[in-house]
Amino acid sequence: MKIENPNPIQWRFAERAEQLQSSFIREILKITQRPEIISFAGGLPSPATFPVEEMKTAFDKVLSNNGKVALQYGPTDGYLPLRQWIADSLSSTGSTIAPEQVLMTSGSQQALDLLGKVLIDEGSKVLVETPSYLGALQAFSVYRPEFVSVDTDDEGLVPSSVNPVAEGARLLYALPNFQNPTGRSLSVARRVELVETCARHGLPLIEDDPYGALSYSGEPYPKMINMNPDGVIYMGSFSKVLTPGIRLGYVVAPMPLVRRLELAKQAADLHTSQLTQMVVHEVIKDGFLDRHIPSIRSLYGNQCQAMLSALEEHFPAGVTWTKPEGGMFIWVTLPKHIDAMQLLDEAIANKVAFVPGAPFYANTPDTHTLRLSFVTVPPERIREGIAILGKLIAAKM
Amino acid sequence: MKIENPNPIQWRFAERAEQLQSSFIREILKITQRPEIISFAGGLPSPATFPVEEMKTAFDKVLSNNGKVALQYGPTDGYLPLRQWIADSLSSTGSTIAPEQVLMTSGSQQALDLLGKVLIDEGSKVLVETPSYLGALQAFSVYRPEFVSVDTDDEGLVPSSVNPVAEGARLLYALPNFQNPTGRSLSVARRVELVETCARHGLPLIEDDPYGALSYSGEPYPKMINMNPDGVIYMGSFSKVLTPGIRLGYVVAPMPLVRRLELAKQAADLHTSQLTQMVVHEVIKDGFLDRHIPSIRSLYGNQCQAMLSALEEHFPAGVTWTKPEGGMFIWVTLPKHIDAMQLLDEAIANKVAFVPGAPFYANTPDTHTLRLSFVTVPPERIREGIAILGKLIAAKM
Repeated sequence: MKIENPNPIQWRFAERAEQLQSSFIREILKITQRPEIISFAGGLPSPATFPVEEMKTAFDKVLSNNGKVALQYGPTDGYLPLRQWIADSLSSTGSTIAPEQVLMTSGSQQALDLLGKVLIDEGSKVLVETPSYLGALQAFSVYRPEFVSVDTDDEGLVPSSVNPVAEGARLLYALPNFQNPTGRSLSVARRVELVETCARHGLPLIEDDPYGALSYSGEPYPKMINMNPDGVIYMGSFSKVLTPGIRLGYVVAPMPLVRRLELAKQAADLHTSQLTQMVVHEVIKDGFLDRHIPSIRSLYGNQCQAMLSALEEHFPAGVTWTKPEGGMFIWVTLPKHIDAMQLLDEAIANKVAFVPGAPFYANTPDTHTLRLSFVTVPPERIREGIAILGKLIAAKM
Repeated sequence: MKIENPNPIQWRFAERAEQLQSSFIREILKITQRPEIISFAGGLPSPATFPVEEMKTAFDKVLSNNGKVALQYGPTDGYLPLRQWIADSLSSTGSTIAPEQVLMTSGSQQALDLLGKVLIDEGSKVLVETPSYLGALQAFSVYRPEFVSVDTDDEGLVPSSVNPVAEGARLLYALPNFQNPTGRSLSVARRVELVETCARHGLPLIEDDPYGALSYSGEPYPKMINMNPDGVIYMGSFSKVLTPGIRLGYVVAPMPLVRRLELAKQAADLHTSQLTQMVVHEVIKDGFLDRHIPSIRSLYGNQCQAMLSALEEHFPAGVTWTKPEGGMFIWVTLPKHIDAMQLLDEAIANKVAFVPGAPFYANTPDTHTLRLSFVTVPPERIREGIAILGKLIAAKM
């Protein structure tokens, strides 16, 4: 019973929808998923680390013992025992985090979206690192802020460069541990300085921490939220320490903000799967992560070392790169005359892929940078791929 | 290592965050979850209908056969076999829906949020039914539209009342089958007229259909998307036919719109759990819903009948109510001098709860209306609760 000759719709989208663009990385991933390609482009954790058996057992247990509750609608803020677990794991001497401050989200990407929704008006000043995490730039862009890029160096974000731009800014977004894309970490002295600087300006500081547990030495950096629980918004995720496919993250914020975020979440998707939250709590409640995470650290640490050795061996002088102490990424800086996007075309023709650095910049991009991930590639393939890249670069020197 | 005497943050929220308010229903639910209360306030499906065993078997099977894929990041648009299943189930003679038009969402609430994000600017005209689904009003409100309430009567939305307000509107949002909150359905003749009216104006028509499968007779209404696939946006959900706790819904839209929605979803939460999508596909792919849904229809139909009989018996003359042919709700209209909010206070004191109708109106609320849900209350308790409500109302006549 189709109607006849309907007028075609002249779609009129919201202004913010004009800002939307597909993640360049997700586009590259489509090309590079072919098995013959040695891909350093991924941002995905290694599936070898997924605790499939533990998840299976936990789904069975939760559904057997508590199926009707797990499958029903749940509270917007999340499953309380899991929020309590998160609050306990974040609390440190002298700094107690309450479960009421924890809002469960559908992956930490949703926390970024909710923070943008609640804190950013069109034209609001938003401070980000140079370069910054692409997913955050995408999430915030929807709300049409004015991004201000804050300087960084080998020790991460430079706190003194926040001072001149802090006035009137709505937030500062930082990823202090083994940053995506650079692999850099903010030094301890700088953490204190940064938290003090933000507190002086009354500037909300977002501490995004998906990789903090993946320190190869096992020694974690101190968390900024514990330095000023009333001024720091902490974001965490189970994607890199358990599995990403379940989409489970969280944001921990001062009470006035977390209540707004909860209301925004209610309007956005009511709540995150109760079943998933109960299962994750079942898996982790008795110390599983303490046994599991060291195996991830060791896998990633070995592959990082393999890539660093290969870079040393195969990349010509004039190219520099970061030496991460954890996480999933190495950041390469080419000589200024080599464009990473052009290099990518040649690399793909030679069956190697990476992500050019330009999309990670909120303002002026450095076109001679690139990101390499080592976590899903075995060491011998890492050496092979880096040798090919090294030759391509050397031919341009 | 807390810093000393930080300045407190003077929170400055985005203007849209001022629109945020908690769902009145979710607030009422907190009060009415006490077991001694006979609650007709819920909007939750009956947990008696959740296929716990089937879900458990499917989780086990998917994790055993395909765990590493199910637990990894997945595509933003969703799990293709499930999108194909949805496209096939929606296609009808002469109207083929392509899987590319299907975007999987984290519950259909997320589809509402994404539609608001992509289609609504501040001040955009948005047409809604009188009354309308509260979750939609909440989701759209974030984007600060100007709501225009379109007339309804016992046959649902009145298409002729769309004409005078269609010009320049961004969308018309309708819930044509067993509407939440009224339980009313749009007559077949009106569906054709509504689709034609919207097509004439080039006005996108959202057909939200969470309850369509819950027709007590088993006879479905024709879907408006099949009358004009280029002009109708269809929203569906597994919450009412399978389980809500897994948060799985979908939106089916013309290609120019669905690509924008996909980009908005990428920025909002990357993608919906791959594991959950694979499990739901595993449960439903061989016709499970055809066997399962009749048992939900029968349960809800019986309880609806019990409530209608009790209303007939206990409610005084001067009170009217809808007679739903499916879904989960009955809508009651009191005499104009009785305020439903006041009645709720008395009802709760007498251990019965319902939802006052006012929050369901985008513009001027009818304060002498209320919504009753019968799906989670057994027939004898329905009779008991309605008798109590009837007495309270009679005392006010």
